[in-house]
Amino acid sequence: MDEFELIARFFSRASADPDVRVGVGDDGAVLRPPAGLDLVTVVDTLVEGVHYPADLPAADVGYRAVAVNLSDMAAMGSRPRWMTLALTLRESDAGWLEDFADGLYTSANECGVALVGGDTTRGTQVVVSVQITGSVEPGKALTRAGARPGDDILVTGSVGDAGAGLASFRQGAPRGDAVGYLLQRFARPTARVEAGRALIDVAASAIDLSDGLFTDLEKLVTASGVGAELDLDRLPLSPALRATAEPRMALQYALAGGDDYEICFTAAPAVIGSATEIAGVPISRIGRIVEGTGISCVKGGQPFVYHDKGYRHFN
Amino acid sequence: MDEFELIARFFSRASADPDVRVGVGDDGAVLRPPAGLDLVTVVDTLVEGVHYPADLPAADVGYRAVAVNLSDMAAMGSRPRWMTLALTLRESDAGWLEDFADGLYTSANECGVALVGGDTTRGTQVVVSVQITGSVEPGKALTRAGARPGDDILVTGSVGDAGAGLASFRQGAPRGDAVGYLLQRFARPTARVEAGRALIDVAASAIDLSDGLFTDLEKLVTASGVGAELDLDRLPLSPALRATAEPRMALQYALAGGDDYEICFTAAPAVIGSATEIAGVPISRIGRIVEGTGISCVKGGQPFVYHDKGYRHFN
Repeated sequence: MDEFELIARFFSRASADPDVRVGVGDDGAVLRPPAGLDLVTVVDTLVEGVHYPADLPAADVGYRAVAVNLSDMAAMGSRPRWMTLALTLRESDAGWLEDFADGLYTSANECGVALVGGDTTRGTQVVVSVQITGSVEPGKALTRAGARPGDDILVTGSVGDAGAGLASFRQGAPRGDAVGYLLQRFARPTARVEAGRALIDVAASAIDLSDGLFTDLEKLVTASGVGAELDLDRLPLSPALRATAEPRMALQYALAGGDDYEICFTAAPAVIGSATEIAGVPISRIGRIVEGTGISCVKGGQPFVYHDKGYRHFN
Repeated sequence: MDEFELIARFFSRASADPDVRVGVGDDGAVLRPPAGLDLVTVVDTLVEGVHYPADLPAADVGYRAVAVNLSDMAAMGSRPRWMTLALTLRESDAGWLEDFADGLYTSANECGVALVGGDTTRGTQVVVSVQITGSVEPGKALTRAGARPGDDILVTGSVGDAGAGLASFRQGAPRGDAVGYLLQRFARPTARVEAGRALIDVAASAIDLSDGLFTDLEKLVTASGVGAELDLDRLPLSPALRATAEPRMALQYALAGGDDYEICFTAAPAVIGSATEIAGVPISRIGRIVEGTGISCVKGGQPFVYHDKGYRHFN
């Protein structure tokens, strides 16, 4: 099976999107953009053994490669439309590829995204880069730069699950209900696309949580030129995380575990009101934006010094 | 230097493009698409040791990663606008990165392309995926599927240079003028963007030459449901290729060397007339489209059986 047969066999499922004029199989894809909207484009790479364990099921790798990009789209408030796949493989293992493609299309189909092109190459390590392009109402894209002093800081869903799930996977922990849930949160993250769409009229700023809440919130406050006060007692921890991790470790996973793929956003209290969910997704107030720089944490009403910096390549 | 510092230091040069509303540094890029045009999007990956020798200068790797994508855009007749970079590195070597970024921006600037986003990750091998998005007049994108019996088959520039240049590089051949020229054709391919733009009113079909003329022409005739007669005496061979390779090897490089990044296209004889260049780029008639399937070759007026299939991953 050479690369052209491989693409024809695994990555050429038909799309029902009438705006895909030319899809997989030519030098490029031809797309008809929606009139009067802005485009949003994101790219995220998964490297085998770095972003996921080499023995993670192929279907999860495919699902995850799409979902982490959908999460970036969600944090921009964008509607995802089209994706391309740059896939570097060690060998062409038909079983692995079939499972990988199934996972990839499953995640894409959940959000109505069409695979429109790609490139398949050979290397010494699996590297999966997915790029997604979508649309957003002009000038409405959410960015990291809009937070203002007085904003509430909120987060969708729960944080720390995926970090704890990955640790359990690596330790070969028995997969009871709680560990199974945490692992699923790592392997098949739920991108908050509908919540992100709803946030364009609510949020002042937003960021996708991939490297860990503390590190990602730091990026948001730096981009906005503000500071943050984070109330660690308010971090939304799932029952599964509380059941499997000591409180100290649960806090560590929540702040720095990474791979949450939730949206952290800020909004004026008058705008967000007393809402406890958005587009059906629970939201939690975890702090507020203040004048200044950096993040100060509070726990049990007392200042809490926190040092960990989350995940950074090359550090 | 962590990944965020790396991006800020090497990949955040300002763009003058007013349609880039949000560029490098947020969860995604926000772009204002040109009204009434189709979008074209392409992605091509370079893997160290597979697509280029590991000791190729970093500036050439950066230049080449962009140029091979510009070549795909050219073959679609598209105007390239914006690119993203998914870069997997072994370590963060500031000297290598500075050179790589210089080459990358040099190629992008030649065609007015803005770097708008990306992802930088760590792996065991350098993998560079560039995606470029551009625009084309509605319904005008060139594809592989439009060739009709009676069309002339033409090619821009010359073929075989890059294959011969790469072989010389691997053999450590002395870099006299001819070898230097051939190597430059491999390291810094000239994407035929202006020629591609001019071809949208001329060509019936087109394909970018990356895997070798014979293999790529096979893809074109297959997509078009036609056959081709290729006159091997008409292949445009550069003086440098003729000076450094025996005729038999020069022919082999021309048909299967790959990495040419020229445009092979077809056009009705009445449309192309006696033109010898397009947008300043020489063009050569190398055969014609016929009813049927596959490619038959002629050399010295006699049928010539050719077997080589060009480059395919996993084959």
